[in-house]
Amino acid sequence: MPTKHTAMLVILDGLGDRACKDLKGVTPLQAAKTPTFDKLALEGQTGLMDVIGPGITPGSDAAHLALFGYDPIATYPGRGPLEALGAGLASKPGDVAFRANFATVDTELRVIDRRAGRDFTNEEHRALEEALAGIEIDGVKVHFTATSQHRGAVVFEGPGLSGEVTDTDPHETGEIILNSKALTSEAQKTAKIVNSLTKIAHERLKDIRVNKNRIERGLPAANIILLRGPGQHKKMPTLSERYGIKSAALAGGSLYIGTAKYVGMEHVKVKGQTGTIDTNFEGIAERAIECVQGDYDYVFIHVKATDNASHDGNAQEKVLAIERTDMMVQKIIDAVGDKLVIAVSGDHTTPIEIGEHTCDPVPVLLWSSFIRPDDVRAFSEFDCAHGVLKMIIGQDLMPLLLGYAGHIPKLGA
Amino acid sequence: MPTKHTAMLVILDGLGDRACKDLKGVTPLQAAKTPTFDKLALEGQTGLMDVIGPGITPGSDAAHLALFGYDPIATYPGRGPLEALGAGLASKPGDVAFRANFATVDTELRVIDRRAGRDFTNEEHRALEEALAGIEIDGVKVHFTATSQHRGAVVFEGPGLSGEVTDTDPHETGEIILNSKALTSEAQKTAKIVNSLTKIAHERLKDIRVNKNRIERGLPAANIILLRGPGQHKKMPTLSERYGIKSAALAGGSLYIGTAKYVGMEHVKVKGQTGTIDTNFEGIAERAIECVQGDYDYVFIHVKATDNASHDGNAQEKVLAIERTDMMVQKIIDAVGDKLVIAVSGDHTTPIEIGEHTCDPVPVLLWSSFIRPDDVRAFSEFDCAHGVLKMIIGQDLMPLLLGYAGHIPKLGA
Repeated sequence: MPTKHTAMLVILDGLGDRACKDLKGVTPLQAAKTPTFDKLALEGQTGLMDVIGPGITPGSDAAHLALFGYDPIATYPGRGPLEALGAGLASKPGDVAFRANFATVDTELRVIDRRAGRDFTNEEHRALEEALAGIEIDGVKVHFTATSQHRGAVVFEGPGLSGEVTDTDPHETGEIILNSKALTSEAQKTAKIVNSLTKIAHERLKDIRVNKNRIERGLPAANIILLRGPGQHKKMPTLSERYGIKSAALAGGSLYIGTAKYVGMEHVKVKGQTGTIDTNFEGIAERAIECVQGDYDYVFIHVKATDNASHDGNAQEKVLAIERTDMMVQKIIDAVGDKLVIAVSGDHTTPIEIGEHTCDPVPVLLWSSFIRPDDVRAFSEFDCAHGVLKMIIGQDLMPLLLGYAGHIPKLGA
Repeated sequence: MPTKHTAMLVILDGLGDRACKDLKGVTPLQAAKTPTFDKLALEGQTGLMDVIGPGITPGSDAAHLALFGYDPIATYPGRGPLEALGAGLASKPGDVAFRANFATVDTELRVIDRRAGRDFTNEEHRALEEALAGIEIDGVKVHFTATSQHRGAVVFEGPGLSGEVTDTDPHETGEIILNSKALTSEAQKTAKIVNSLTKIAHERLKDIRVNKNRIERGLPAANIILLRGPGQHKKMPTLSERYGIKSAALAGGSLYIGTAKYVGMEHVKVKGQTGTIDTNFEGIAERAIECVQGDYDYVFIHVKATDNASHDGNAQEKVLAIERTDMMVQKIIDAVGDKLVIAVSGDHTTPIEIGEHTCDPVPVLLWSSFIRPDDVRAFSEFDCAHGVLKMIIGQDLMPLLLGYAGHIPKLGA
C-alpha cells in the first residue's frame, strides 16, 4: 500500500453553468479568476461528471449521496432523515423521520397559519421542544427538535416502522390537518403513530405558557406540528464500515450536514460557516487544515453560495463565490497540499439563466502532487471536456479519491 | 423544472461505415454534403455510441429498444411481437406472437412452396384473413393479419402463454411442417395451441374459394400458415408510464413501427414514407413539424434508405440518402428549431464494403439552442470521436434527450 494521503472533496453547489449573457457569453466558472483551480487543473486531471447519470437532473441530496460513493437511487431515504440528521437529531437504520413545521390550528384542527407566525425566540424553541419531549407511542419513541424559525424535524425510533406514509401537512391554510395514510400494508402502524402524534402534540402544546404568551403578544400559537417529507433511514454501510476511514464534513446547510452524517461522516463545526456568500471561507480553510493535520482520512467541504447565486440569477455573485472558494483552496494547498488528494467539482448544474437545476454534467478536477497530469490548463465546463477523466459518474469520484489516497486495499493478490 | 422542449431522435438506419474504396477512402457520411448536420455538430455536442455495448453488433430491432432507453437484452421480445405490432395487430404484455408465411402443403403437410407463390392480391389477403378469423383454442384467442405478399403475423392472446416454443416453419421445401416444441415446461400449453392452429388453419384454408381460384389459375394454394420468430410481449413500462411523455414514431418499415409501438409510441403516418431512397422526405418533415407544434414531447424519425444502400453495396445511394435526410432536418430546424432538443445518429454500422451490420460504434450528435457546444465542427465517424459526449451506449441517449428537454424530474431535493 502506498503512503496514505487525506482525500478532500470540495463541492461548489450548483457550480455547472451554461453560456451566460450577463457574462458576455461565458460561464461563471470561465469568468471567475481562479488561479488555484487552474493550477490544480494544469498539474492534475480533469473531466466531466454526470453526478447521477446521463440526462438525470440531480437534487442536491441525492447528488451528494452519489458523490460520497453511494448508489443515489438505492440509498436515498427521502428528505426527512437527511433534514433530521442535519438538525442534530440521531437517526439510525430503520428509524423514520419527517420535516416538521410549527403551525396554528383551531379547535377543529383547521390550519390557520402553516408557520405559526414564523418567528420564534430560542427560549420559545426550547420550551416547545420540552413540551414535546418523552413521547412514546406503541413502543416507538418520538424525538423532536426545532431548527430555524417555525421549522423542525421528528424522528420515530422503534421496531416495525415504514417511510411509506403520507404527510399530515395539508400545505394550505384553511384545510384541516391531514390524516397520514399508509401507502403499503406494512406502513399502517407508522401512519397510526403519526396520527396519534398529531393529537398528542396538540394536547401538549395548546395551553402551555409559551403559547399563552404568544397570544398575549398578538402572535399565533404554535399549537400543532405539521409533518412532511417522510422517509426511512436505510440499512447501508457507513463510510467507516466500507473503507475504514475517518471522515469529516464541513458544511453550513443542514441538508448537506444531514446527508454527510447519513453516510457516517462527522460534522466538524466551523464558526460562521453558512449557506451564503458571507460564509467564513478563512475559518473553513483553517478547520480543514486541522482535519488533515489530525487523523481524518477524508474531508468534505461544501460551499452553498454558488447555488444560491444561480437560483437568484446573480452571475456576479456566483463568480465571487467561485473566486472566494478558489482562495480558500489555495490556503489549504499551501498548508497541507503534500498530504492531499483533492477533488473540486459541483453537485449539479444550475444555469444562471434558468435558475433551476439542470442535467448538464459538471466539471471535475482531481489533483495530488503525484498524479499523472493531462493537457488541460484551466478549470471550466469546456476545458474539462478534454481531460483524461473523460466522462465519469458521481459514484466514481469517491473510489478515485480514496484509491489515489491509499485507502482502498488491493483487490486480489 | 426548466422550460420543456420536444425531444427528437432522427435515426439513419445503418448510418455508420468504414473507409470506402468507392468513395476514395472516406465514409459515406464524410463524402455526403451535410451542411445541416455539420452546423448542428458545430453548435451542439457529439460523440460515438455503442448502441448495445462494446463489440456487440446490433440488430435493428434490439438497437431501437436501446435507443428508446430500454435494456435491449432484458426487454427484447423476439421478432414476432415487433412484426405483429408493425403489421397493425394489437399486442400486450403476456401475448405471444409469430411471423407467419402463407405456404402450400400436400395432404401429408409436406411443404411444396414456402411462399405459396409469393404474390397475392388485396382481395386474396382479405379472404384468407377472414378464413382465419375468430379462432380460439383452449381459451386463447388467435389474431392473424396478412401484410405484404405471402407474409403475415399472428398474435396469441390469453392466459398462461410462453414465447419459449419452436417454429413450425421447416425453412425448407420438401419437409413436413414441424411440430412446435416447448423449450420449457411452462411452454407446453403454447406449443399445443400452436400445433392445433396448424391443423385448424389447414382445415379452414384448404378448400376455400380463393385457393380453388388460385389452383384454377395455376397458382399454389395458400393452404397453411408457417410460423417462425416466436416471442412474448414482455411486461415493461411504456414511455408514457416511465416518463409521462406523449411520443410519436414516423417510420416506414414495419419492424421500426412495431418496435416503436412496443414501447408505447403512437405511429404517426406519413403519406409516401417508405423504406427506400424515394421516401417522402418533405412529407416526413412536415408531419414532424406538426408533431412538435402539437402536443408531442418526443418524436422519432426513422430513415431506412441508408441501410438498404449499405446492404446493396451502393455507396452513392447511401450518400444521397444522407444528404436528403440532412435537408429534411434543415426544414424541421427552420420551422421549430427553438422548440427542440434533437439527436441525429444511426442504429448500427453497416459498412458498404461488408453489406452486413458490424459492431463499430456510430456517430451521434445532440443539439439544442442552449446546449454547451464542444469543439467538433462536422458530423462524421471520425469528427465525433473528439466530441464531449465521448463514448455513450444507446440506452444513454433517451435520458440525455429527455433530460435536456425537461421531461425527467429532478432526483431528490
